[in-house]
Amino acid sequence: MSVSRRGFLQGLGVGRTAHASAFMAARGHEEYVAEAMEPQGGQGGRPMRPNLPPGVEAIRISSNENPLGPGKAAIDAILGKFPEANRYPFNSTPLDADLEILIAKLNAGKRENVVLGVGSQELLRNAARVFMSPTKHLVIPSPTYGDPAGFAQNALHYTLKSAPVSEKTLKTDLSVLLPLVKGAGLVYLCNPNNPTGLIVPKDEVKALLDGIPKTMPVLIDEAYHHFVDDPRYATSVPAVLEGRPVIIARTFSKIAALAGMRLGYAIAPANMIQQMRPYSMGSINALVKWGGVASLKDAAGQAEVKKKVMDLRKKTAADLEAYGYECLPSETNFFMVAIGREIQPVIQEFAAKKVAVGRPFPPMTKHMRVSVGTADEMARFMTAFKEIFPQKTRNTAAGV
Amino acid sequence: MSVSRRGFLQGLGVGRTAHASAFMAARGHEEYVAEAMEPQGGQGGRPMRPNLPPGVEAIRISSNENPLGPGKAAIDAILGKFPEANRYPFNSTPLDADLEILIAKLNAGKRENVVLGVGSQELLRNAARVFMSPTKHLVIPSPTYGDPAGFAQNALHYTLKSAPVSEKTLKTDLSVLLPLVKGAGLVYLCNPNNPTGLIVPKDEVKALLDGIPKTMPVLIDEAYHHFVDDPRYATSVPAVLEGRPVIIARTFSKIAALAGMRLGYAIAPANMIQQMRPYSMGSINALVKWGGVASLKDAAGQAEVKKKVMDLRKKTAADLEAYGYECLPSETNFFMVAIGREIQPVIQEFAAKKVAVGRPFPPMTKHMRVSVGTADEMARFMTAFKEIFPQKTRNTAAGV
Repeated sequence: MSVSRRGFLQGLGVGRTAHASAFMAARGHEEYVAEAMEPQGGQGGRPMRPNLPPGVEAIRISSNENPLGPGKAAIDAILGKFPEANRYPFNSTPLDADLEILIAKLNAGKRENVVLGVGSQELLRNAARVFMSPTKHLVIPSPTYGDPAGFAQNALHYTLKSAPVSEKTLKTDLSVLLPLVKGAGLVYLCNPNNPTGLIVPKDEVKALLDGIPKTMPVLIDEAYHHFVDDPRYATSVPAVLEGRPVIIARTFSKIAALAGMRLGYAIAPANMIQQMRPYSMGSINALVKWGGVASLKDAAGQAEVKKKVMDLRKKTAADLEAYGYECLPSETNFFMVAIGREIQPVIQEFAAKKVAVGRPFPPMTKHMRVSVGTADEMARFMTAFKEIFPQKTRNTAAGV
Repeated sequence: MSVSRRGFLQGLGVGRTAHASAFMAARGHEEYVAEAMEPQGGQGGRPMRPNLPPGVEAIRISSNENPLGPGKAAIDAILGKFPEANRYPFNSTPLDADLEILIAKLNAGKRENVVLGVGSQELLRNAARVFMSPTKHLVIPSPTYGDPAGFAQNALHYTLKSAPVSEKTLKTDLSVLLPLVKGAGLVYLCNPNNPTGLIVPKDEVKALLDGIPKTMPVLIDEAYHHFVDDPRYATSVPAVLEGRPVIIARTFSKIAALAGMRLGYAIAPANMIQQMRPYSMGSINALVKWGGVASLKDAAGQAEVKKKVMDLRKKTAADLEAYGYECLPSETNFFMVAIGREIQPVIQEFAAKKVAVGRPFPPMTKHMRVSVGTADEMARFMTAFKEIFPQKTRNTAAGV
């Protein structure tokens, strides 16, 4: 599996570990874009990635992407269907309905419990749209994944109430969150949580669901679900099947490595799916649906990705701890390291060394989020880290 | 161009004209989807395209798609970037900003005048979302492209006022539409109009813009812009650049043949773009942006597609007229033919002959919309038409 996947990408001229270096050098870029552009303010006329000066080739461990790329089955499925690129998704199998049926089956639900999205983002936003109102706020942990809250505030102009994570453990603190639920329209939980990588244990999720009004909608973002090993964690899909007003959001951007293709889904009680469906654009890319089907059926490929990512995360975290910097016990394809000073200038220092690390996540501005890249990328990251930070004794860098 | 484009698709195992027959036979379908599915109500356990019984291979001339497929430059650009499929679009060039700048430049505007969409559909819907309200209705011609009106009614629960096309000419009748604008939030014009294929001449568009309140938002859907030959037509982009509250929607689904990949854009005054931008998901497929850039720069490829489609449309319409059935003078990649009886059963008769034709477009339910397919597909369509309809003298089938 590993060999053929790597072989495929190399056959296209870009190997897994060569992603980054091939990036700005790719002929197509100069050919198609840059020559047509004029200098634009701070952009200096060159396209650039976030946090990087123009022209810099960098390793991208900033966005919790999967550097291994999609599995061979997904690649074959997508590319084999490229001649359908001129057909609308509703004219091109698998239809959205086909994929919804398959997802329902794999999750012991019915098609009426599933809706697809252009990434899980469409579904996170649509949940905010449907269940919030000017008088019904969103409850979120802080920090957490920011897109639904940002959309609720900036586009919908609705209000938020946020529950800080525990100062001591940095875990999502449901005892702080629970009192904020009164009068809310929606409770958002990211489990495991981004950016901390920490899980909310299944018994705590149950306590939350039992402790709030029976009709209160709860959106549980399980983007990183597939990476978890801790037996105290479980998916909350069973809560949906019990008929609780819970929406589970999943994505093909992480374990399936299709972030650029945009595919996600939600699992929820039929009446909540019905409320959300009219807001879905029905604009799922025709090809990624094939990739989604193939990925769902490729359990071996998922297990391979999980093992590689976990091994490398553990190795990198151990290296950092040995160097004196504490890491949070992540259950995802990223982790946070306590750096003991403000993150913003550190991001720039890493960028100068061609390493794109995670953005700031207030209030945890003395932690850095690191996505697990390839082994080569993690080695480059460690080299940069040691150039930027002095070796320390174990405890000096801990805390928020 | 033609030869290499055809060669590419055949190299992938599916030639242009073999699209349809390869469709249900494709191994991947059985392999990945059908085996995982159980019988589902009316679907009989098999995925199906609209209007077709299970298992039927049909030619698809129902959705105004471009059967020629994307040009070679776009194909090369998209497939060459496939190794970026695991990267979020915001981490993968061209950035949305790059493409917005290129579109602005090609249309004599600035980046602040452009926003991308997951197909133009996202932008049509977002315009409804932003400029309509419970008290500000949508004004549309009838019939016209139904998605923005459907979204406004079904998802937003806003109201519509529709202006029937002229009974005599079947053209969009601005004298009927104009009085409906009072108190509206948004006026929608599809130019050329779908499903009629008829243009609204530039002097009539100007008269409309001059005849309504200066601040009334007008959404002009130019999906079929690139196919027009009639010198009385012009794009309304200049109205945007004059500062009128006009939003132009364009798509890469038609002339660029990327319907399955989902990419569109809007051009509007900066303040309207600012109002719409928060609602954009920012979820453009990372690969289709390359296809978009390549397509925009491939003027020769566009001209080739336009000529082929126009020649075949004219030939097919001439054949139908010779057989006694009047066709509307389309300026697009589809046309309407007056069939003299209700369309719904006719759709089923064509489906039984493995030809998927356009859906009903009330109130023009005695017309059939036919998308221009390949030459082979048009020949199959004509054969089916002659089996279903008797030869007539010229005038008997005219009228709504």
